[in-house]
Amino acid sequence: MPHISLGNDAPGILSLFQYRPETARPLCDLADALLVAPSSLTRGERELIASYVSTLNDCEFCASSHAAFAAAQLPEGMTLVDQVRADAAGAPVSAKLSALLRIAAAVQRSGKDVREADVAAAREAGATDVEIHDTVLIAAAFCLFNRYVDGLATILPDDPAGYAAMAGLIVTNGYGAASGQPV
Amino acid sequence: MPHISLGNDAPGILSLFQYRPETARPLCDLADALLVAPSSLTRGERELIASYVSTLNDCEFCASSHAAFAAAQLPEGMTLVDQVRADAAGAPVSAKLSALLRIAAAVQRSGKDVREADVAAAREAGATDVEIHDTVLIAAAFCLFNRYVDGLATILPDDPAGYAAMAGLIVTNGYGAASGQPV
Repeated sequence: MPHISLGNDAPGILSLFQYRPETARPLCDLADALLVAPSSLTRGERELIASYVSTLNDCEFCASSHAAFAAAQLPEGMTLVDQVRADAAGAPVSAKLSALLRIAAAVQRSGKDVREADVAAAREAGATDVEIHDTVLIAAAFCLFNRYVDGLATILPDDPAGYAAMAGLIVTNGYGAASGQPV
Repeated sequence: MPHISLGNDAPGILSLFQYRPETARPLCDLADALLVAPSSLTRGERELIASYVSTLNDCEFCASSHAAFAAAQLPEGMTLVDQVRADAAGAPVSAKLSALLRIAAAVQRSGKDVREADVAAAREAGATDVEIHDTVLIAAAFCLFNRYVDGLATILPDDPAGYAAMAGLIVTNGYGAASGQPV
């Protein structure tokens, strides 16, 4: 049960978006800028980073929903998402994505844990400065989203199939549509 | 030295706002919604929560800048800010603010660390659901901002007096003005 009376029974962050539209809007705008807007990282790759960081933060709602969003947009589907979430270092991703996942894991622990060597390795594997920037900010953003969702003890969907249904909406419409919209 | 070439020498998050205006806008909008918009928590109280969480995350730029913003807007000034940062449990704040600072500290560790008893104690001390919500989201947001600032190794101001100068701008204009604007 949520820690406060949210006035709706939507799952996870959707209940918080409905409760407080004033903060929902910038949060959805941030998600759109990071995960939907044009980028040299694919939408699937960016959602994979989001699900991975949420897994490290043990946030079931965010990890499962962004896993579904990643799987819907990656050629390898949920098989690769599960591999990354279980063992990122051993997962069959490109050298560049592997290096970016290492940076994301460092950010999840602490910003100060990102070492010059991590950044050099990502650059060596072909990552651009903007890709490194966006990886750091995606990882940092999910340290917000995960704490927001769990810090207010929001509920999970009754049926895990809800995540795939959300994926359809997010892939098509982006996060702007998530603000205030029940699943 | 920053991990990537930011193309400017502004300190802390200001350099990142100039580097990536696409993400600066929603981040500044979020800061305005949480720290500037009308609320039953004063602007000084909200900046105090921001500085406290940034202190727990060991982020010097955010802890010092929001300490200056809090001090400029609290009757007790920097004396109280220093007390909270050094020993929140022993600081002379209201029972309500003390309970909210405990919730903020829990969020800084993990969303799952916020216990029903913490929320009950805040409510007992007079906190509303919206105040509890906003405290959780302010604390979560600074887990983003702190990781963003340190994860890209942004620089500190040459002169700590820069924080007080920033305070003047933020108190008067809010965070919208911080996007892309050098100190």
